[in-house]
Amino acid sequence: MESELKEMLIDLDTLKRSLPDPSLLASIDKMQSRVEHLTDLAKSAPVRRSKVKDMSAEVVDSNPYSSLMALQRMGIVANYERIREFSVAIVGCINPFRSYFLTLELSSLYCFPLPSTSGIGGVGSVAAEMLTRCGIGRLLLYDYDKVELANMNRLFFRPEQVGKTKTDAAVQTLSDINPDVVLESYMMNITTLQARMVVNQACNELNQTWMESGHIQLLVPGETACFACAPPLVVASGVDEKTLKREGVCDASLPTTMGVVAGLLVQNTLKYLLKFGHVSPYLGYNALKDFFPTMEMKPNPQCSNTACLERQKEYILAKPAWDAAAAKAKEDEVSVPEGPVHDDNEWNISVVDDTEPVTENASSSDTLPDGLVRELPIANEFQKPSDPEEMTNSVDDLDELRKQLEALNAD
Amino acid sequence: MESELKEMLIDLDTLKRSLPDPSLLASIDKMQSRVEHLTDLAKSAPVRRSKVKDMSAEVVDSNPYSSLMALQRMGIVANYERIREFSVAIVGCINPFRSYFLTLELSSLYCFPLPSTSGIGGVGSVAAEMLTRCGIGRLLLYDYDKVELANMNRLFFRPEQVGKTKTDAAVQTLSDINPDVVLESYMMNITTLQARMVVNQACNELNQTWMESGHIQLLVPGETACFACAPPLVVASGVDEKTLKREGVCDASLPTTMGVVAGLLVQNTLKYLLKFGHVSPYLGYNALKDFFPTMEMKPNPQCSNTACLERQKEYILAKPAWDAAAAKAKEDEVSVPEGPVHDDNEWNISVVDDTEPVTENASSSDTLPDGLVRELPIANEFQKPSDPEEMTNSVDDLDELRKQLEALNAD
Repeated sequence: MESELKEMLIDLDTLKRSLPDPSLLASIDKMQSRVEHLTDLAKSAPVRRSKVKDMSAEVVDSNPYSSLMALQRMGIVANYERIREFSVAIVGCINPFRSYFLTLELSSLYCFPLPSTSGIGGVGSVAAEMLTRCGIGRLLLYDYDKVELANMNRLFFRPEQVGKTKTDAAVQTLSDINPDVVLESYMMNITTLQARMVVNQACNELNQTWMESGHIQLLVPGETACFACAPPLVVASGVDEKTLKREGVCDASLPTTMGVVAGLLVQNTLKYLLKFGHVSPYLGYNALKDFFPTMEMKPNPQCSNTACLERQKEYILAKPAWDAAAAKAKEDEVSVPEGPVHDDNEWNISVVDDTEPVTENASSSDTLPDGLVRELPIANEFQKPSDPEEMTNSVDDLDELRKQLEALNAD
Repeated sequence: MESELKEMLIDLDTLKRSLPDPSLLASIDKMQSRVEHLTDLAKSAPVRRSKVKDMSAEVVDSNPYSSLMALQRMGIVANYERIREFSVAIVGCINPFRSYFLTLELSSLYCFPLPSTSGIGGVGSVAAEMLTRCGIGRLLLYDYDKVELANMNRLFFRPEQVGKTKTDAAVQTLSDINPDVVLESYMMNITTLQARMVVNQACNELNQTWMESGHIQLLVPGETACFACAPPLVVASGVDEKTLKREGVCDASLPTTMGVVAGLLVQNTLKYLLKFGHVSPYLGYNALKDFFPTMEMKPNPQCSNTACLERQKEYILAKPAWDAAAAKAKEDEVSVPEGPVHDDNEWNISVVDDTEPVTENASSSDTLPDGLVRELPIANEFQKPSDPEEMTNSVDDLDELRKQLEALNAD
C-alpha cells in the first residue's frame, strides 16, 4: 500500500504544477480508480465480531461459545455462563527462579501469573488468551515490559508487535479475539521477589484465595500453606542456581512447557470457579520426565506472617461446622428418594409433566459438586473463601488489592 | 481508513468538475496531507522480520532464538539447531472420539495431529505454532475446513480469519511468526476413522515412527503397538458414547485441555527429535482429575496388519545387537578416564590449552543422551527408526507417505 500511496503523491504533485491544463482529466481518473482500489483493500481489513448478550448453546458455526456451553449439556458444569461474573487479574513478577504467581478472588477478582523473567511472558499471556477465549468477565493485566523478538520462543506475541508494551499488545490481540471480555491493563514494574510477598500479604489480609504458577499451587488463607509458610521455592523445588538471571545469559524456555503450565493453571482455575472436577492444591510438571508431582501443603503454625496466623485460627474454629455441613450435604444427596417427589400423596394432587422439572430444579439449585456446600450453618461473620456465593465484600477487596499493588509500584 | 479514503474520492470528484479554476490549489494541498497521513498509517502496518541464516545463542532482545539456544548452554540439548533439519507433517482426521493422530519421521518428515472433529483444530494448530516458534525446518499442514466463530473456544485462530480455509489462515499466522520455517499446506478431506488406519499402514510399511494425540502415543513399528494392534480407542480410553458427533450437537472443548495436550505432544516430539529427557511411550491427561496415566503398549503378535507383523519380526531379530550396542555405549561412558587424554605421553608432547578443547569435542561428538546409540554394529540392512542419523531413505519415504495420503483423499 505504501508504494501505491507514494505514486499517488507524485501524481498529485504533477497535477498541481500543471493544473490549468484540462487534458489532465485522465490522470485524475487514474487516481480515482487507485483510491477505489485502496478502499477495497481497507474493506478486507480485520472486522471484529459484535458483542453477544447471552452465551448461547446453539450449535452453529457462528456461535463462539457452542463448544464451551456444551460443558453444561454434558453435565460437567452446572452453569457455564457464570464465568462472565468473574474477574481475573494477572500480575507479573521478575524473579530469578522462573516461578510465577497468580492470585484469585471469586465473584470479583481473580489474579493470575505474569511469569518469566520479564513480566507477562509465556505463561501469563497464554493464560490470558485461554481465559479470554473462555469468555471470562474481566481481565486485568499488570506488566511494564515491551515485546521483543527474543520473546518469540513463547506463544502469544507476534513479531509485528515488537516495540509495543506487552500490555498494549495483549489488549489488542485479546480484544480482537473476544470483545465480550472487559480488558484493563496497568503498567507496573514488579521486579523483586518481594512482590510475591506483597501479594501474599494482601491475600492473607483480605482472606483472598489465590494461585501461583511454575508449579501450580492453590493458596487458601488459613487452610493451605501461604507463601511465607513454605521455604523459598529455590529450595522447595530444587531449581539449580545455574538458571539464575545473569547479564548476557537467559533461561532456556520452550513454548511447549509454558503451554502445558498455562493450560494446567487455567484448567485448575476454571474448575475452582465453575465448580467441577478435582481442584489440585499442588501440581508440578517435570518436563524432562513427564512427571506430575502432587501434594498438599498445610499452613505452618509458626508462619512469620501474622495475617496468615489469624486466618489459620479462623479456619480451625470454622472447620467443624464446615465438615458437618459437608457431611449433611452428602447425606442429603444419598438420601434423595428414587421414586416420585410426593410419594405419600395424601391429597391426591397430580399435575401433568411436573415431576421431571421439579427434580431438575432441585438438583441444579440445591446440589453442588463434590466437596462444596452452599452455606455455613454458623459463623456468619466468617466468609469461607472457597465459595464465591458467599463473597459479599468483593468490590472492596478488589480495590484494596489494587491499592496494595500500586503501593508496591510506588516504592 | 475507509472513511478517509471516501472523503478523498469526493474531493477528487469536486476537483475534477471544477478543474480549470486555479483557486482549487488549497484543496489539492489538503489531499496531499491526507495521503501523507495514510502513508504514515501504512508504515506502521505489520513488518515481518527477515530470515536468519544460523541460530544464534546471543542474549539480545532482537534474537528470536536466544531462549531456545540456551538449552545447549544449560546442557539439556546437545545441538538445538538440528531442529532445522526436521520436517513435520500435521495430518487431521475427523473422528468421533476426539482422539487425534500425528506421525513423525526423523531427518525428513514428522507428521503431527490435526485434531478435533473438524480438522486442524485445537491441538493441531497450537502444535503447529509451537513447532514454528521452536524453529522447525519444515511444516506440512493437511486440512480442508474453514475457520468459523465456533472455533474461537480454541487457541490460535482469530475472528478476523473467519471464512478463510484453516490451512491458509494457519500459513498466514505462522509465516508472520517465524519466516525461517518452510510452510506447505494441503487441502485434504480426511473424514473417516479409516484415515488413521491408512497412516498406520503407511508408517508400518515405511518403518516410520509416528505419534498420535488425544492421549499421546508413540508408535514405533515392530517395537510398540501399532494402531491395529490395540483395540479401538473408544474401548481403550473409556470415552462415553454420548460425546459422539451428532447433528446439532458439538463436543465440549476447552482451550486449556487442548493447550496441555498440544504442549505434551510437541514436548515429547522435541525430546524424541533432539534426544533429551524421557520420551513417553504413552501419556494420558485426565483433565477432571489432573491424572496423567502412563503405560507401555507392546505390539500384538496376532495383529491384523501384515506390515506390522514384518516389523515385529525385524525388531526381534535386531534387538539383541541393539541391546549389546546400548550396553557397550553405556560401558564406554562409564569407563572414560578421569585424567588427561594422553596419560602415557611417551613423546613428551605438550601443547598449551589443548586439554579442554579435546575433551569437549569428544563429549559432543561421541556421546549421545541416555539410551541412544549412534550406530548399529550389525544388520546394515535394518534401519533403526529411533535414530534419525540412520535414516537414508527419508525423501523416498516422504514422497511415498504423501502419495498414500493423496490416494486416500481421491477415494
